[in-house]
Amino acid sequence: MDLADCYLKVRKRTEEICSPLQTEDYVVQPVVDVSPPKWHIGHVTWFFETFILKPYFMGYQEYNPDYNYVFNSYYETVGNRVIRTDRGNLSRPTVAEIYRYREYVDEAMASFLCEAPSAEVKELLILGFNHEEQHQELLYTDIKYILGHNPLFPAYSKEYLSPKIEPVESDGFIKLNEGIYEVGFNGSGFCFDNELSRHKVYLNAFEISPNLVTNAEYLEFINGGGYHDFRHWHAEGWDWVKTNKAEAPLYWHLIDEEWHHYTYHGLEQLILKEPVCHISYFEAYAYAAWKGLRLPTEFEWEAAAPLFSWGKAWEWTESSYLPYPGFSKAPGAIGEYNGKFMVNQKVLRGASEVTTPGHSRVTYRNFFQTNLRWQFTGIRLAK
Amino acid sequence: MDLADCYLKVRKRTEEICSPLQTEDYVVQPVVDVSPPKWHIGHVTWFFETFILKPYFMGYQEYNPDYNYVFNSYYETVGNRVIRTDRGNLSRPTVAEIYRYREYVDEAMASFLCEAPSAEVKELLILGFNHEEQHQELLYTDIKYILGHNPLFPAYSKEYLSPKIEPVESDGFIKLNEGIYEVGFNGSGFCFDNELSRHKVYLNAFEISPNLVTNAEYLEFINGGGYHDFRHWHAEGWDWVKTNKAEAPLYWHLIDEEWHHYTYHGLEQLILKEPVCHISYFEAYAYAAWKGLRLPTEFEWEAAAPLFSWGKAWEWTESSYLPYPGFSKAPGAIGEYNGKFMVNQKVLRGASEVTTPGHSRVTYRNFFQTNLRWQFTGIRLAK
Amino acid sequence: MDLADCYLKVRKRTEEICSPLQTEDYVVQPVVDVSPPKWHIGHVTWFFETFILKPYFMGYQEYNPDYNYVFNSYYETVGNRVIRTDRGNLSRPTVAEIYRYREYVDEAMASFLCEAPSAEVKELLILGFNHEEQHQELLYTDIKYILGHNPLFPAYSKEYLSPKIEPVESDGFIKLNEGIYEVGFNGSGFCFDNELSRHKVYLNAFEISPNLVTNAEYLEFINGGGYHDFRHWHAEGWDWVKTNKAEAPLYWHLIDEEWHHYTYHGLEQLILKEPVCHISYFEAYAYAAWKGLRLPTEFEWEAAAPLFSWGKAWEWTESSYLPYPGFSKAPGAIGEYNGKFMVNQKVLRGASEVTTPGHSRVTYRNFFQTNLRWQFTGIRLAK
Amino acid sequence: MDLADCYLKVRKRTEEICSPLQTEDYVVQPVVDVSPPKWHIGHVTWFFETFILKPYFMGYQEYNPDYNYVFNSYYETVGNRVIRTDRGNLSRPTVAEIYRYREYVDEAMASFLCEAPSAEVKELLILGFNHEEQHQELLYTDIKYILGHNPLFPAYSKEYLSPKIEPVESDGFIKLNEGIYEVGFNGSGFCFDNELSRHKVYLNAFEISPNLVTNAEYLEFINGGGYHDFRHWHAEGWDWVKTNKAEAPLYWHLIDEEWHHYTYHGLEQLILKEPVCHISYFEAYAYAAWKGLRLPTEFEWEAAAPLFSWGKAWEWTESSYLPYPGFSKAPGAIGEYNGKFMVNQKVLRGASEVTTPGHSRVTYRNFFQTNLRWQFTGIRLAK
Repeated sequence: MDLADCYLKVRKRTEEICSPLQTEDYVVQPVVDVSPPKWHIGHVTWFFETFILKPYFMGYQEYNPDYNYVFNSYYETVGNRVIRTDRGNLSRPTVAEIYRYREYVDEAMASFLCEAPSAEVKELLILGFNHEEQHQELLYTDIKYILGHNPLFPAYSKEYLSPKIEPVESDGFIKLNEGIYEVGFNGSGFCFDNELSRHKVYLNAFEISPNLVTNAEYLEFINGGGYHDFRHWHAEGWDWVKTNKAEAPLYWHLIDEEWHHYTYHGLEQLILKEPVCHISYFEAYAYAAWKGLRLPTEFEWEAAAPLFSWGKAWEWTESSYLPYPGFSKAPGAIGEYNGKFMVNQKVLRGASEVTTPGHSRVTYRNFFQTNLRWQFTGIRLAK
Repeated sequence: MDLADCYLKVRKRTEEICSPLQTEDYVVQPVVDVSPPKWHIGHVTWFFETFILKPYFMGYQEYNPDYNYVFNSYYETVGNRVIRTDRGNLSRPTVAEIYRYREYVDEAMASFLCEAPSAEVKELLILGFNHEEQHQELLYTDIKYILGHNPLFPAYSKEYLSPKIEPVESDGFIKLNEGIYEVGFNGSGFCFDNELSRHKVYLNAFEISPNLVTNAEYLEFINGGGYHDFRHWHAEGWDWVKTNKAEAPLYWHLIDEEWHHYTYHGLEQLILKEPVCHISYFEAYAYAAWKGLRLPTEFEWEAAAPLFSWGKAWEWTESSYLPYPGFSKAPGAIGEYNGKFMVNQKVLRGASEVTTPGHSRVTYRNFFQTNLRWQFTGIRLAK
Repeated sequence: MDLADCYLKVRKRTEEICSPLQTEDYVVQPVVDVSPPKWHIGHVTWFFETFILKPYFMGYQEYNPDYNYVFNSYYETVGNRVIRTDRGNLSRPTVAEIYRYREYVDEAMASFLCEAPSAEVKELLILGFNHEEQHQELLYTDIKYILGHNPLFPAYSKEYLSPKIEPVESDGFIKLNEGIYEVGFNGSGFCFDNELSRHKVYLNAFEISPNLVTNAEYLEFINGGGYHDFRHWHAEGWDWVKTNKAEAPLYWHLIDEEWHHYTYHGLEQLILKEPVCHISYFEAYAYAAWKGLRLPTEFEWEAAAPLFSWGKAWEWTESSYLPYPGFSKAPGAIGEYNGKFMVNQKVLRGASEVTTPGHSRVTYRNFFQTNLRWQFTGIRLAK
Repeated sequence: MDLADCYLKVRKRTEEICSPLQTEDYVVQPVVDVSPPKWHIGHVTWFFETFILKPYFMGYQEYNPDYNYVFNSYYETVGNRVIRTDRGNLSRPTVAEIYRYREYVDEAMASFLCEAPSAEVKELLILGFNHEEQHQELLYTDIKYILGHNPLFPAYSKEYLSPKIEPVESDGFIKLNEGIYEVGFNGSGFCFDNELSRHKVYLNAFEISPNLVTNAEYLEFINGGGYHDFRHWHAEGWDWVKTNKAEAPLYWHLIDEEWHHYTYHGLEQLILKEPVCHISYFEAYAYAAWKGLRLPTEFEWEAAAPLFSWGKAWEWTESSYLPYPGFSKAPGAIGEYNGKFMVNQKVLRGASEVTTPGHSRVTYRNFFQTNLRWQFTGIRLAK
């Protein structure tokens, strides 16, 4: 598939994700971490316009200079922007206007891609595809939050298909020996700068579970008083529990003494054998502590990943999100992509059911703050 | 005009106010005091459904029990409700769904009003009309806030006509003598419970301006350093200035050293001879103090009102919003209408350019907190 | 008694109030409204130094210029000052140093008062006495808060004598006729600027209770679910109840199912026939509403005061704290004394058991925000 | 030295640190991280009483059960406690009472230590010594904060001697080869549980500076606009700069265009060749980024530590505070010592000028949140 086709394919998928939405669903921002879907579709468009069309496409006419202010996410290099908490306060540009903007940029990109791009542009293009794929996942998680926190609990789409992953039968842990392992990306395709460079780490012998923790197992923790016993929690996690009156994963509702959860189909009964999902790092840690076990480090995970299947929920690791040896930020706005977030966040490995297929890989480093739950986040145990 | 016609007329005006809106404009809540327009059109509908159709229209089928939760404003009697700050987080029900709800209730009301209603219902109906008229004004002020705080500064409607009021030529003050005056409603038409009952007050001799303070006059205060001299302000007002970095009325923008303000037509140059508008009580008080004058009390205003014209901006008075002698709350939800707000608010008298014609009157008592500016609020001086 | 003797008497009383304190009790500020006792004794001293010695005593040597920063309360005219919430963060100057400062200023005042002061100075002196008397009451209430919120509940002094006021036997209300009454100060002694000038008000016929509401009566409100029924409360008061989980007056503790309260003698059993005290305006209003009655206005109170006894608790009135007709602030720092607080506060009339004897009078206007409870505040009913 | 002598020595040093204080200095808590000195001296005493005397000294009579509530720091196992932000609101127990408590416990400990303690008790005793030594450092840093944030800038003690450390002449970096290194404690003396167990890590080749960054070097960063260029900062660090209006390290003051800093002797001119101190992790990281370098990891630091001198300022590392392989919390209250803080904090290595001599060691892991500056924290660069 050539780059123009890749471009079209990526862009089309974004629109497909949004196709079940009502106009109003595009607009709201019920919590700071969630962005309005219309902001996402404008922002990913602005990314191609700002980093490819404006600098590299001679004669390109910027669609609307104000959009730079509206759709810049966090690039200080590119200038001022709507403060994050205000994204949901903007009724304009309208959804239709943003789709027109999208069309305009897509047409310009089509013209631009008629000729083979330089290596430099190609690299930016592929970054743009991966960037849009990240926002595809955010669209899914943000839409779930928007509809799942509406008192009417509307379905996103009854046709949404949740992927099935069969658990491994044996529940014995996988054992790996002590020794030097290599981690980090060294393939030939695309990777983010935070996966580079491949380097050696020393791991002690460890064991890791072939399966994710299930809803059934997590319910034992809840029913065993896990949310009411400080001993399982970090001090900061225990504060989080009390401040948020946390009693169960996000989206769980106890209705007539039966646990339900909000899904893309609306409120449904909890399926016990599925992996527990939408938990914070604090909860993942507390669950593991309650079991007398622990979370794997990101390097243990990477070393063992060929030995288990992964992919329906991102997996919290014990590792903080830090630069690999030799990491350095690219100059300019693109350099703001990863490095500046490398503090006070935890690495997640794997992929979730709403990660764009093919987007993740064994060396991929996702990262979030320890209190967040709106992503599809689960638990794999180690010891 | 019979009640059914009145009903239609009131309802139609609400829809006309909303007709220039895009769907997205109906959804957002950029600040807690502003409600999404779709919430307003649902709430005024819910008012007729809850207080008239459900208790008095035999066989009426409630449209959707969940709407009680969504569209209740502050009636504790009626049950739980979406917390105020969450109104802008709800993408559902959609605008189209709310208009369907509106149609459903309008049809039921039409049937219900085929027969002459009882005196009790008639009273509730007229309260419902006045209630919807109040929300018509809120629709105007909330729409102004929503569009006027958008970085694109979109116009509401180029056809919007701002009423013109010619200032009185003389700027001499109107003098009234010391003595007993009667205040409060004693007419035969509708009034709110907070205007009752008519009673005597003793006023010292006072003088009151026939005109409102203009933008030109207020600019002298700004240019004279009024926002930087604590002596003109209440201690609480001075805190407000510093916390909010207030430098000018709401909607004012200094562009290339010329003052502009956001209007329903978009950003426009300030018209100097128009009344200053969108100021807090703190600013009204500070302006008067800077002039060596003061604001009138609500009783001075009422006594003098027949001697001047009023109506393009609500006028802050020095009076706190308190019950009149003999005031008592009605039992039940309707009793929550006014009385429970009678603390820490100031009375405003008059009417604004977006008050529904005929809605206000000389005894009308509007009220807001001292820091608010999104209503059309201005200054009349007294001494 | 001449002015020098008055000065000594006022100053001595301040020191007597503090005599039971430990050094540590002088230092802390457990809540923003409470000031550390050492701040009070420095501030009242600074008042005499700043407004009398520095401008009027030729050759007076300022004790320490930094104290201007430390002991200024809210006089913007006088310059910068420690922000209010930081008063309890200052370990220096020490208590001993502040007493040395006090001695230094007292000696200078003694010299200064050897000669008869001018009329202008005399007026400031008497303001200074009244100012220090106000801080004497604040010392009592702040000490009560500091010790009463300590987990050890230490007594202030076992010798503290609470004044007894015998209730009037009859519980019939006192009736006053409709008509014009005069309110405000017109005596020959001292009064604050907010009591001036005497003027006419028109009152409707009203009735007022000869006694304050007792603990026994207030307990009926508590036991009757008063804190759990929104209908008795202002909307803002109901928010206050829920936010603060209010269930009883300040200082009340339910221990083994018996109500106790913290007093200057430590924790003691509640005396049922005493006036209820340490309640907010919100609670006073709600109690009255629950009884189907109301609070008097400050003018009703003043008109009726000669007919009842008052003085063990300040009495919340329904009146907002507003300027009297013709009120104007004095120029300079002294003008900041009262006027700038005339917004969003309620007037209290009477006096409390810790008001300096002779300090209050029938026209005296005390004022606090509607949520505050650390003053000795009670309820008199009207209808 | 036997255990009884060790006990006396540790306890005596705490009292010596406090000897220059005024009573008032013991009481205040100007910011949540700082505890009142009287709380520290009570808390370390409570530690011996709670974990040694009460469980192991037969017949021991608890001094005052309320002290358990007052002096518990964060041990959930031991029960409720004064919330942290309230420590500075407690005037009682007084300083004298706390010293009496201290004497009482010291006497009991003397009796208890007449007989040789069991191995289990001995371990707790040594933990108690190390615990008190940690609070000795906190006493120093908290006293500095209390006096250094007082507008009078009082000296702690003119006799305080700041240790001198001569910088290494050469400014070439120390080079270490790639390979496996061992880290963690394996000596025979005391260590904290977070230093265990010794284990292998793989390090890439790296270079590390023999000296800490000096005030002169850090001034270049300030003068070069380092606090005004987002590119050097983490996103969260940049927010911190803007929210706190950070322009220089804590305790620095620009007076008449010369940099001064608060020291234990009062305000003094900055000494340019001394290590920069009292900076947050965010600042350490930004400085390194501005130089095109980075901070060392805690393992690089430990591997290289024998090759440089350390000890006048704690050194921020790039490493997050995480458990070592095989780490597990002790059961009971003692298990709350370290493990529950292993999230969202950074490791600091070395020691500071106020660390009790002999307390730190090459494997010692100190830890603080990334925004804190009141500890003596500095920068060592790596590449």
